[in-house]
Amino acid sequence: MTRRMEREEVLVPADVPPGRRWDYQENYLKITRESGRLMLFAGDQKVEHLNRDFSGPGISSEDGDPEHLFRIADRGKIGVFAAQLGLIARYGMDYPRVPYLVKLNSKTDLVKADQRDPISRQLVEVSQVEEFARESGLAVLGVGYTVYLGSEYEAEMLREAAQIVLQAHRRGLITVLWIYPRGKAVRDERDPQLIAGATGVAAALGSDFVKVNYPRKEGARSELMFKEAVAAGGRTKVVCAGGSSRDPESFLKELHDQIHISGAAGNATGRNIHQKNLKEAVRMCDAISAITVEDRSVEEALRIFEGD
Amino acid sequence: MTRRMEREEVLVPADVPPGRRWDYQENYLKITRESGRLMLFAGDQKVEHLNRDFSGPGISSEDGDPEHLFRIADRGKIGVFAAQLGLIARYGMDYPRVPYLVKLNSKTDLVKADQRDPISRQLVEVSQVEEFARESGLAVLGVGYTVYLGSEYEAEMLREAAQIVLQAHRRGLITVLWIYPRGKAVRDERDPQLIAGATGVAAALGSDFVKVNYPRKEGARSELMFKEAVAAGGRTKVVCAGGSSRDPESFLKELHDQIHISGAAGNATGRNIHQKNLKEAVRMCDAISAITVEDRSVEEALRIFEGD
Amino acid sequence: MTRRMEREEVLVPADVPPGRRWDYQENYLKITRESGRLMLFAGDQKVEHLNRDFSGPGISSEDGDPEHLFRIADRGKIGVFAAQLGLIARYGMDYPRVPYLVKLNSKTDLVKADQRDPISRQLVEVSQVEEFARESGLAVLGVGYTVYLGSEYEAEMLREAAQIVLQAHRRGLITVLWIYPRGKAVRDERDPQLIAGATGVAAALGSDFVKVNYPRKEGARSELMFKEAVAAGGRTKVVCAGGSSRDPESFLKELHDQIHISGAAGNATGRNIHQKNLKEAVRMCDAISAITVEDRSVEEALRIFEGD
Amino acid sequence: MTRRMEREEVLVPADVPPGRRWDYQENYLKITRESGRLMLFAGDQKVEHLNRDFSGPGISSEDGDPEHLFRIADRGKIGVFAAQLGLIARYGMDYPRVPYLVKLNSKTDLVKADQRDPISRQLVEVSQVEEFARESGLAVLGVGYTVYLGSEYEAEMLREAAQIVLQAHRRGLITVLWIYPRGKAVRDERDPQLIAGATGVAAALGSDFVKVNYPRKEGARSELMFKEAVAAGGRTKVVCAGGSSRDPESFLKELHDQIHISGAAGNATGRNIHQKNLKEAVRMCDAISAITVEDRSVEEALRIFEGD
Amino acid sequence: MTRRMEREEVLVPADVPPGRRWDYQENYLKITRESGRLMLFAGDQKVEHLNRDFSGPGISSEDGDPEHLFRIADRGKIGVFAAQLGLIARYGMDYPRVPYLVKLNSKTDLVKADQRDPISRQLVEVSQVEEFARESGLAVLGVGYTVYLGSEYEAEMLREAAQIVLQAHRRGLITVLWIYPRGKAVRDERDPQLIAGATGVAAALGSDFVKVNYPRKEGARSELMFKEAVAAGGRTKVVCAGGSSRDPESFLKELHDQIHISGAAGNATGRNIHQKNLKEAVRMCDAISAITVEDRSVEEALRIFEGD
Repeated sequence: MTRRMEREEVLVPADVPPGRRWDYQENYLKITRESGRLMLFAGDQKVEHLNRDFSGPGISSEDGDPEHLFRIADRGKIGVFAAQLGLIARYGMDYPRVPYLVKLNSKTDLVKADQRDPISRQLVEVSQVEEFARESGLAVLGVGYTVYLGSEYEAEMLREAAQIVLQAHRRGLITVLWIYPRGKAVRDERDPQLIAGATGVAAALGSDFVKVNYPRKEGARSELMFKEAVAAGGRTKVVCAGGSSRDPESFLKELHDQIHISGAAGNATGRNIHQKNLKEAVRMCDAISAITVEDRSVEEALRIFEGD
Repeated sequence: MTRRMEREEVLVPADVPPGRRWDYQENYLKITRESGRLMLFAGDQKVEHLNRDFSGPGISSEDGDPEHLFRIADRGKIGVFAAQLGLIARYGMDYPRVPYLVKLNSKTDLVKADQRDPISRQLVEVSQVEEFARESGLAVLGVGYTVYLGSEYEAEMLREAAQIVLQAHRRGLITVLWIYPRGKAVRDERDPQLIAGATGVAAALGSDFVKVNYPRKEGARSELMFKEAVAAGGRTKVVCAGGSSRDPESFLKELHDQIHISGAAGNATGRNIHQKNLKEAVRMCDAISAITVEDRSVEEALRIFEGD
Repeated sequence: MTRRMEREEVLVPADVPPGRRWDYQENYLKITRESGRLMLFAGDQKVEHLNRDFSGPGISSEDGDPEHLFRIADRGKIGVFAAQLGLIARYGMDYPRVPYLVKLNSKTDLVKADQRDPISRQLVEVSQVEEFARESGLAVLGVGYTVYLGSEYEAEMLREAAQIVLQAHRRGLITVLWIYPRGKAVRDERDPQLIAGATGVAAALGSDFVKVNYPRKEGARSELMFKEAVAAGGRTKVVCAGGSSRDPESFLKELHDQIHISGAAGNATGRNIHQKNLKEAVRMCDAISAITVEDRSVEEALRIFEGD
Repeated sequence: MTRRMEREEVLVPADVPPGRRWDYQENYLKITRESGRLMLFAGDQKVEHLNRDFSGPGISSEDGDPEHLFRIADRGKIGVFAAQLGLIARYGMDYPRVPYLVKLNSKTDLVKADQRDPISRQLVEVSQVEEFARESGLAVLGVGYTVYLGSEYEAEMLREAAQIVLQAHRRGLITVLWIYPRGKAVRDERDPQLIAGATGVAAALGSDFVKVNYPRKEGARSELMFKEAVAAGGRTKVVCAGGSSRDPESFLKELHDQIHISGAAGNATGRNIHQKNLKEAVRMCDAISAITVEDRSVEEALRIFEGD
Repeated sequence: MTRRMEREEVLVPADVPPGRRWDYQENYLKITRESGRLMLFAGDQKVEHLNRDFSGPGISSEDGDPEHLFRIADRGKIGVFAAQLGLIARYGMDYPRVPYLVKLNSKTDLVKADQRDPISRQLVEVSQVEEFARESGLAVLGVGYTVYLGSEYEAEMLREAAQIVLQAHRRGLITVLWIYPRGKAVRDERDPQLIAGATGVAAALGSDFVKVNYPRKEGARSELMFKEAVAAGGRTKVVCAGGSSRDPESFLKELHDQIHISGAAGNATGRNIHQKNLKEAVRMCDAISAITVEDRSVEEALRIFEGD
């Protein structure tokens, strides 16, 4: 198991004002479960993927109801549950123990890049998130935002991202940027050099965490190429997207490699969790947390998933 | 008849601040006539359809005068009458008992998607609606807004919609989103998967109600496909658009199916009401309310429409 | 002659706050010369038509000087003189008795719709108009704004128009919308159905008056088709554009038909007045007012124009 | 020599508030050197023409240094020196006696209209100009702004121009609009009808002065065609652009015609002054002022230029 | 060695308010190391060039970690270290002695001009920079911003640049503009005339320093052509971009020419420093400073680089 991180070990960025350093450290310890690593359960895909991720062959019928996500977040071991403020507002009162991260932008994937480059705009302000957290009493630990690098609308998203990081830090909130190269100018979204560029951009924007896709290149090992991206992020910690659903063993093995070979600081997983029924989904959360937060082996994690 | 809903049964979303919970519950009970279901009389089509819906063969000549809408809203059993603030401002003083919902955006349908994807922008602010209600003394229970998913301008409408839900809830107002997939990227606006996506987006935006078109697919039963959309909305209640005018019996039968087979929480009807003369229009309101709010059978509703 | 309208007969829209109802009524009585009908002298075309309307064959050389417009407005019987704030600011101090309406937007007609759809943006804010009126002491009774329905930029203009009506009413000012269908999507700008749509849009926006072009259709009588547009406007009163210059008799005859057959509430006339020399222009104002405001016959009006 | 204009002869526009009338009159007298006519020395072309106007064959090497402009403005007889605020800020402390006009927008001419229609946006706010003047103690008499009529972006520039005139007048500042027809929709930028349209637009915007290009048409005399433009401007005084450099005699002759035949109220000259060495440039200023401000003949002015 | 510049020799631009003159002079002396010349170490390329500049053949593996930049800035002789606020916020607390310049905008180079002209938008406000400096206690001496002249989006960048200069000066901060001609309308980005235009634009915007690319033209000597650009900048001091990495001798020789032949006021260097290992990078900083700030010869500088 990982050593318990102490408050004084949390490095507070310089854009957190003195009066909010304690809050930042508190949120950082909570979101990483005092491990310095992040297990993010992604529940924000009802916009990007519409209902495709939540209904269909191989998907538990329980996933058709949005409350499924909250039930999992409530019972599974997670660092934080990411969703839009609106969704959190409809279920949060019944799930007050869940640690939340408000995903600040979202778009559907109906318009493809060959028609028009992607743009996803901020839906709510960081100040509104803070007000919401204060009045509802819910535990909002941080905010998230997606940037499409290489889109013709990149400038608007970089501006919003920079502002979000600055304004979140001013309130002691943790930030996670989802950064994906995408658009007509991007030939290969998984190009290792682009992924390393994406983590470097997150560092320049000053984010605490950045979520990127796992690099992929014919004839090369992803876990090795990913090291460069982790290095380029510097003090901005890198987590990997879980991607589409597949068998738990290979999923957990890859996650273990990302952390122990590439140096990643965790994961952001959605479909590989919520497309299962509640019992399996909770176990999957626990298995992922075992690797991410508790430094367990793949075998131990797999046994947790299998309920042994 | 449906059981009378009690105030404590109204689930207040977490973005309603403590001091406005009572207002929200009050507005929710009024707009659903204490049934939890919504009968919305749509009077906002003078922009989208210009004068086509209000004059022509098969349309009562009474419908050519905008006041016709207010006369119906005043005498028929409705949950709420939806119209633009400007229109309400010109007649509201003479119809003070009508429950109003301010439709916040509108566009004409002159520009088709193959020329330019649809965009409809917010005309008045939620704060202006509140000010209007307070000063005029009119009963404004909520606000509405249309989003065109899959439009190239989707980002601007998602942003406005998210802000409207948040700001309306902060004032204890009920929200209804009209969500229609539309644009060059949308091949079939009635595709059941897209409709389920639309209700999921409304859930992510945190709306109280979402109005969608009834799904339609060759060889499949709409009322069954619609169940998935209702499920995907979760705590965001789904109501169906009434669509173009047709015979009352099939209209009422479909509405009954939507509620009792699909699980819909009501309807939003315009043309099937206001294109009739006042007497018939009022009866049509009452018939629709009989099914939606009072849990009557199709036969009972039809007898109400026929004035028995 | 029309019956003198009493203050209590002025129906104040519900978006006029209680403290401004008296101002609204006062402005309404003045702008209609206590008749409920509007005689608007349009002096805002120096932008839209550049100098074409003010110089050339058949146009009095007096019209080349902008002051000509003010001299006419000062001496003729008019309800209100519409011009841009900037123009009013340069001459108003010498014409303090003229009742003014500030036209809030204007564009040149250099860019045609086949190059780019029309857009005309608000030049000054309603709050600035109020401030100007207060400090200058000039009688500003209302504001005007043009919307091009069917333009690809319609959304921006509908938004500005809705805000202008709301903000003007909050200050007790009268509103006139110029609504013209125009753009690549509009095949026939004079299509009677479109004109009726335009007045309906004005009603949805809550304007006091709407100025539209006179409908025109092969084989149909304009004054009859225009009735539908007047009906569709409801409590938003409809006035007709004067159009290009022509002989006074047919002009006055058409105006009389618009009021007495179609039910229009007045007219907005520019070129048919200001392209004449001062003496004739003043008489033309008086003749138009005779029909619009004083309910005189075409013959009586013509005698006034001829100076008998 | 022209008669000395008295303060009470300065016609103050009605958008100047009572408390600023004295300032406006003071600024007007200074900028016209108590003549009612404007001699504007244009030093704002380092953006529009980059370094082309300041270096090359036939241009004094002194013109390569921006300070050359300030040296001329300091020693020559001018009404006002127009430049961007940034440039004034770098040299103004050493040239405190120069009367300044802050040019509020500028663009390079790199992008031609066949690629994209021209747009030039406001760089600094009028309130910032006022603050700058107050804190620096420099004599800022007015502000200037360029509008490209017929550009697809005309709407944005008309809006900015209207706001600038209004806000400048509220502070007692004098306004000069540069209005040029330009863009794909404009076939002939010097078309006399368009030039007359431009001065009319300036009148509608309420500017004190408008600078236009001199009309040009095969087989017609420019000074006669220009009369129509001067008339169309009404109380908005018209000044002519100096244009590209040429021989002093024909330049001064043309200026004399513009004033005495066309009725123009002055000139705005850049290259014909600053491309000369300091001594000649100062004499050229004095010669231009002799005609514009002191009502001298062409011969007298020429003798001044030649240093007699 | 250059003579030590005294406080009273710092020419304060007129847009610095009286109460901030002392701050401006202090910042100016620090950023130029009391020499009047600027040695800027550029650490802002993680966005523009993604990870290409920081990893690959010929690049020290130390450069893969963003902290490398801070280590160099901490130990080398530099005037200022330029980076995005977010990056400074993550490392600044450990490098409190470094003098910082916040680069306010950045974009990736993924979208090429033939797809869409470049646009780079301001990420954080000058007021936020000031707040950050005050609360963090870091030494922020100035701000920087890039403008792409000739881009179709030039207008937006010119506006942001003008505002940044004005707002920075109001707070006593030093400004550096990066000005590059770029876009479909620009055929040769290194054209000497364009470079001279760029420095002139910086002068019109009132910046303290402008960074441009070194002019290049077949058959002409860059250091001579560059003189015109330096002259055109006037009181806006010109520094040259270091460009891509190459051998130290030719690099230092060129820098010496720029300063002593062309009259440049320093340099802005990134890759030629940070792509080396820490020891060499620090020596390179010292060598560059020797020429820029201490007026040493190329030979002396080279010996410093070689560690003699």
